[in-house]
Amino acid sequence: METKPPLYEQFAHELEERILAGTFPEGGRVPALRESAAQRGLSLSTVLQAYRLLETRGVIEARPQSGYYVKYRRRRVGLVPDPKPPSREDPTKVSIDDITLRLFRDKHDPDFAQFGAATPDPELLPSARLNRLLAELARDGRFSMDTSTLPEGCEELRVQVAQRAFGYGCEVGPDDIVITSGCSEAMSLCLQAVCVPGDTVAIESPTYFGILLILESLHLKALEIPANPGTGMSLDALEFALENHPVKAVVAVTNFNNPLGSRMPDEAKADLTSMLTRRGVPLIENDIYGELYFSERRPSVAKSCDAAGYVLLCSSFSKDISPGYRTGWVAPGRYLDRVRKLKMAYSNGTSVLPQLTIARYLESGGYDLHLRKIRKAYAQKSLGMTRAIEECFPEGTRIAEPLGGYVIWVRLPGEIDSMQLYREAVKSRITIAPGCMFSPSGKFRDFIRLNAAAWSERTEKDLARLGRLVSDLSSSRVPAARGGHALQS
Amino acid sequence: METKPPLYEQFAHELEERILAGTFPEGGRVPALRESAAQRGLSLSTVLQAYRLLETRGVIEARPQSGYYVKYRRRRVGLVPDPKPPSREDPTKVSIDDITLRLFRDKHDPDFAQFGAATPDPELLPSARLNRLLAELARDGRFSMDTSTLPEGCEELRVQVAQRAFGYGCEVGPDDIVITSGCSEAMSLCLQAVCVPGDTVAIESPTYFGILLILESLHLKALEIPANPGTGMSLDALEFALENHPVKAVVAVTNFNNPLGSRMPDEAKADLTSMLTRRGVPLIENDIYGELYFSERRPSVAKSCDAAGYVLLCSSFSKDISPGYRTGWVAPGRYLDRVRKLKMAYSNGTSVLPQLTIARYLESGGYDLHLRKIRKAYAQKSLGMTRAIEECFPEGTRIAEPLGGYVIWVRLPGEIDSMQLYREAVKSRITIAPGCMFSPSGKFRDFIRLNAAAWSERTEKDLARLGRLVSDLSSSRVPAARGGHALQS
Repeated sequence: METKPPLYEQFAHELEERILAGTFPEGGRVPALRESAAQRGLSLSTVLQAYRLLETRGVIEARPQSGYYVKYRRRRVGLVPDPKPPSREDPTKVSIDDITLRLFRDKHDPDFAQFGAATPDPELLPSARLNRLLAELARDGRFSMDTSTLPEGCEELRVQVAQRAFGYGCEVGPDDIVITSGCSEAMSLCLQAVCVPGDTVAIESPTYFGILLILESLHLKALEIPANPGTGMSLDALEFALENHPVKAVVAVTNFNNPLGSRMPDEAKADLTSMLTRRGVPLIENDIYGELYFSERRPSVAKSCDAAGYVLLCSSFSKDISPGYRTGWVAPGRYLDRVRKLKMAYSNGTSVLPQLTIARYLESGGYDLHLRKIRKAYAQKSLGMTRAIEECFPEGTRIAEPLGGYVIWVRLPGEIDSMQLYREAVKSRITIAPGCMFSPSGKFRDFIRLNAAAWSERTEKDLARLGRLVSDLSSSRVPAARGGHALQS
Repeated sequence: METKPPLYEQFAHELEERILAGTFPEGGRVPALRESAAQRGLSLSTVLQAYRLLETRGVIEARPQSGYYVKYRRRRVGLVPDPKPPSREDPTKVSIDDITLRLFRDKHDPDFAQFGAATPDPELLPSARLNRLLAELARDGRFSMDTSTLPEGCEELRVQVAQRAFGYGCEVGPDDIVITSGCSEAMSLCLQAVCVPGDTVAIESPTYFGILLILESLHLKALEIPANPGTGMSLDALEFALENHPVKAVVAVTNFNNPLGSRMPDEAKADLTSMLTRRGVPLIENDIYGELYFSERRPSVAKSCDAAGYVLLCSSFSKDISPGYRTGWVAPGRYLDRVRKLKMAYSNGTSVLPQLTIARYLESGGYDLHLRKIRKAYAQKSLGMTRAIEECFPEGTRIAEPLGGYVIWVRLPGEIDSMQLYREAVKSRITIAPGCMFSPSGKFRDFIRLNAAAWSERTEKDLARLGRLVSDLSSSRVPAARGGHALQS
């Protein structure tokens, strides 16, 4: 099953490869739009999309009345390689270390450089506006924020969510939606709705550790499906897994997998949906980063081609509006009744106050403008951090360049143990997320995830310190690899 | 194991018995305080407490410079009888009908007389004050309500909760507390922390149906322990159950069990705690109604004598401050780490906005005054509804008079099926909670629970309509009981 990215991305990728190779040097001109279109047999708009993508990433820049120029040429750092071809892995009983709790705790310590948890930049939240709306709501007697709501949440917010979902191709109505306490609760409810304890769930590898925590708490087993830094979960590997294991559900972050920053091409999402529908296996699709795309157009979701209702689409406003509001949602398709009932059992309903505030914010129309602003900011932060890693980390470091979101997946050189790096970093008041957190079987020990949302000129020196720690660990390993004699000679 | 109520309650009960028997007729004087104290060998303060209790219940009234008089004499209606002695019951796999969801749905239908769900009276919530505090918070830039909090919640609120818990004898600090999305989530987390799917949990019978929903969602089995309308869960029956079943946890609403309105005497709470500590069995104690006592003094909790940490105390502000805020908490004792980790997995943390608003409200000192007001109001509502039931329901109806909270547990006469009554009532735009919802094995079919918070002069006619429905069902059953001939003769 092929999972090719769209044409404009393929072309952007090719052009970037040429820039990397030095064909188009830094400061030099790249072919004009019409020129490229004619040469490659592409439409002008496809080329324009490709150039804009590279522009967003900071690789090229447009100069008025002149054309496009190479702004920045990637140097030593290569991309994270594709995962190995699928093997017959056994489902893993999930169990994560207390490191997760530690990560969440350190995130509130102002002494730390916060490259660990994937929290958004507080300066990129619409706090002032939310507070104004909140004050308005508090003064406006019409809303009863104190009395409880339906288990599925406030209609005002469900209407807004449905309207936005329609905008990216999902035909879900307000009554098809359940408001939740963030995307985590949405996924917990979905997994409870479609699985019983002991069941096997297919997940991306690497995957967000929060998903692993949920699987563990629900006594579910994880089956890791390799994911590609560009296109996400391998559908070939998934099909193999479905043939060979009693998979009861699939969980996938189709847009901007955390930590990979990958994006499953929209056609692949359709293939995924039909593959699972054929087998009657539910897909729990996490689209929490879906709005934070670096390309021209919002990517679609598998849910948009879900005629049979096997896709449970989960998202939240924690990345773009407010993590502290803890307001998310799920469109559970054919599992709606079960999810609603579980929500009622678990917490009766979601807090009304944040729901109404977000509903007002969405109604008021400033959201799209806000999203445009933060998309650009996160693209720039991701690029800035990528560059800084290239500058400060030792030779052999590899980066999975994100297509959206704001986390960066880094492979350390020389098989450095990222847990060791984590411990050293904590001593130096820097938090990072070591790679083993992203796999229930402890893969990715030589990877780390960095939060690009925390990148700024102020934190550049912290990243440089981290780079030195990597270099130290890297060089201290060389003698050991040679037999441990070097130190004594 | 004896579970005697405190002295003043025993005396109040005895005096009320005498009033019921006609010894002290309506309008007549009851013995003066000193007189009673001397006669019964009780302290003056004990007698005063007893009189105040009867006054709160509306049985007697104080007339200035004159003494206490019988204000109201209960008539035809008796108390719900004690449960049958414990038998060797088997744990029940929990499964509740969609009736619960229907109940939650109808609760938002303004056409319905709301005797079903146990929602507080909106007029007895401090909404105006909460809204003012909220507006202040929204204007005050110091609080970051948008950024996420620790999994265990905001320190401001945990400090307030710890201070109040100290007030009723619990030595828990802010760090021993996890803030949750209401009391339901608190209980869900506790059950997940101490059980694995398939485990057996001992519960009160009858018990709040929300607990049954949680057990069902977590694949836990329920073992019903008979509960007494006065003193709650039978400790003898519980001990028997612990001897004969692999009970992994006990869930009890020690203060004002919903639906019974019972209260486990404080000494019995201590016995319960030591019984379970000896066996290493955790007690999940739900104290959501603890502040809504009708007597003089706040009842204690089992947690207050929990030296070994086996008690997980759960509560929330949903009954007295705001159900819509969905803010509760748990002090999980020795299971703190597990509960915190599960909270992190499930929803990362609780919404910050309502937490800070409630923390401010508690700090500001108006809470105690508010509680005094609503305790009185709910005691009066409970009494008002009890009287109205006596007036409007047919002969043979029985009532479990609540000692706190605001629900009333009613046994229908002539073995009326409360599901049938429920259906008839819904047709008449009245919601009630049929008794079978309060038992996983479908006991209590001839019981209903009524929400006294919804009682007022406006809803009195609705209760009268309900009474007529009961009468109709009651009389329609008589011919059938005689062999079904009466209708044809």
